[in-house]
Amino acid sequence: MIIDCHGHYTTAPQQLADWRDRQVAAIGDPTNAPDPTELVISDDELRESIETNQLRVMDERGSDLTVFSPRASFMAHHVGDVDVSSTWARICNDLCHRVATLFPRRFAMGAMLPQSPGVDPTTVLPELRRAVEELGAVVVNLNPDPSGGHWDSPPLTDRSWYPVYETLVELEVPAMVHVSTSCNPAFHTTGAHYLNADTTAFMQLVQGDLFADFPTLRLVIPHGGGAAPYHWGRFRGLADMLGKPDPEELLRNVFFDTCVYHQPGIDLLTDVIPSESVLFASEMIGAVRGIDPRTGHHFDDTKRYVDATPNLTDAEREAVYESNVRRVYPRLDALLASQGR
Amino acid sequence: MIIDCHGHYTTAPQQLADWRDRQVAAIGDPTNAPDPTELVISDDELRESIETNQLRVMDERGSDLTVFSPRASFMAHHVGDVDVSSTWARICNDLCHRVATLFPRRFAMGAMLPQSPGVDPTTVLPELRRAVEELGAVVVNLNPDPSGGHWDSPPLTDRSWYPVYETLVELEVPAMVHVSTSCNPAFHTTGAHYLNADTTAFMQLVQGDLFADFPTLRLVIPHGGGAAPYHWGRFRGLADMLGKPDPEELLRNVFFDTCVYHQPGIDLLTDVIPSESVLFASEMIGAVRGIDPRTGHHFDDTKRYVDATPNLTDAEREAVYESNVRRVYPRLDALLASQGR
Repeated sequence: MIIDCHGHYTTAPQQLADWRDRQVAAIGDPTNAPDPTELVISDDELRESIETNQLRVMDERGSDLTVFSPRASFMAHHVGDVDVSSTWARICNDLCHRVATLFPRRFAMGAMLPQSPGVDPTTVLPELRRAVEELGAVVVNLNPDPSGGHWDSPPLTDRSWYPVYETLVELEVPAMVHVSTSCNPAFHTTGAHYLNADTTAFMQLVQGDLFADFPTLRLVIPHGGGAAPYHWGRFRGLADMLGKPDPEELLRNVFFDTCVYHQPGIDLLTDVIPSESVLFASEMIGAVRGIDPRTGHHFDDTKRYVDATPNLTDAEREAVYESNVRRVYPRLDALLASQGR
Repeated sequence: MIIDCHGHYTTAPQQLADWRDRQVAAIGDPTNAPDPTELVISDDELRESIETNQLRVMDERGSDLTVFSPRASFMAHHVGDVDVSSTWARICNDLCHRVATLFPRRFAMGAMLPQSPGVDPTTVLPELRRAVEELGAVVVNLNPDPSGGHWDSPPLTDRSWYPVYETLVELEVPAMVHVSTSCNPAFHTTGAHYLNADTTAFMQLVQGDLFADFPTLRLVIPHGGGAAPYHWGRFRGLADMLGKPDPEELLRNVFFDTCVYHQPGIDLLTDVIPSESVLFASEMIGAVRGIDPRTGHHFDDTKRYVDATPNLTDAEREAVYESNVRRVYPRLDALLASQGR
């Protein structure tokens, strides 16, 4: 079984963006804010948006199930205040829940959180609980920089984040550390901000001691861990200089996905990072949608690279495709078990 | 001949840090600012600080010449105003000039620029000219984020940077794109901020069209290009989506150094990036100073990785060690030629 642990609902019907535009236009003018009930998308529209996009591509490439969360670049936690984010997160999570309900064997839900810059992270807890306990989310996306590229939040190891981790541990869901759109002109969203966030988060974890306090917390760093595997020697050397354990010890709690869009990158990832800590993912339909003229295949068809890498045994490859993610996402494992899978 | 294009004077005598402490303490209180003439370091002290450190390591590892610029993390352009930065840059550049003068066959000078957050980049031009024309700098370090981790400068493709590029082109010196200390607690300086800056700068260049305006400008992106080579497929795919040329076309003007501190990283770099665009460097004595217990050698002994990689022919390896940097740094080539090398 092939599980893609990182997909976003990037293809939602136009009504969603239209509703969001109205919500954003009404910031500071709440009497004109649209009501969530004014967003009407039929099941048929949802089905079509999935069947012609993600599901088609999954079938073409041979993946069985995608963990499916709201579009990362649309989370835009820096837009509006915590109330704006809360309403928006509910709407986006509800849509992912509906997709997972319509295609119960093909999609499992991931959730976004209603973060807002400078706001106490405890404000996300009600939606986190709702998404997991009522909607069935098996993972949540945690944004280490809700400001959208100004990086004015404390590191992920800061105690202000602890209530989120306590709830994640209690609910047995991992978090994927995933930023949203950059509103900083220095950072291209998917070409710089995403990768920088991955690198930054990993180094924060190297510097800190988070998993001493949360030994069962699991964090997924997407996009192949940003720059970390390529610079694994640097991270090992810095950890040594900081008097911290070898970063490999973090990999009991930290996992990298395979959203690396060429063969040499996947070869490096699977050479450097123990296979138990690598989770298959493509992020399709996402940041990079084109076909590589050198290969004739989509850049984000990461299954081809994972299949082709000489650095995994068959058993390790199976683990990257299935058993690792079932171990790291216990609620996904329970869901699949309930389906007899 | 083996040329290390990326070394910093990280081992200057204590008087330098003491003088800087006094300068920083007097910010806002200029009557107490120390005079540059109060910094006294003898030639013998300079010699010793080099012979026991960089020169010893160069001899141990077998490199012939290091391009040697002021300590990157000490540039700290965010500290004080443009006058503070200007005085500090002059002092640091003068010291590197003295080192290159004391060891003319082992060190060539690189310069820092007196950047300051929010200040027009034209203010760096006098020191840039002085460093090149009077002190003999063969490269300058250009900080894309003088704020130290707040990233409030426009992208490197913005026209406000153009006077710097015009002067670099006129003087025939490349710039190494290199940030300084992070004062943002989200970013570890050498484990996140440096790598993020490399990735960010490269993506800015992918988005822009800088080399159409400056076809002979050359920019070196250190630390193996940040995350760019590991995510080369992502950058190629994003360039395609943005309607930009394949990023490989940038590599006529953009060069990556070999400051990647493990064998798989150097293998990826030399697999993905054409060897003409790779410049040997170690950044020693720099960010990572320890010995890798797995190999018994220093993490930053990058010559071992370059020697061992199967991805370079002997001719390509020679180019990475010498001829590429002589081509990219014409003033270094002229200096070496004047020495009969």
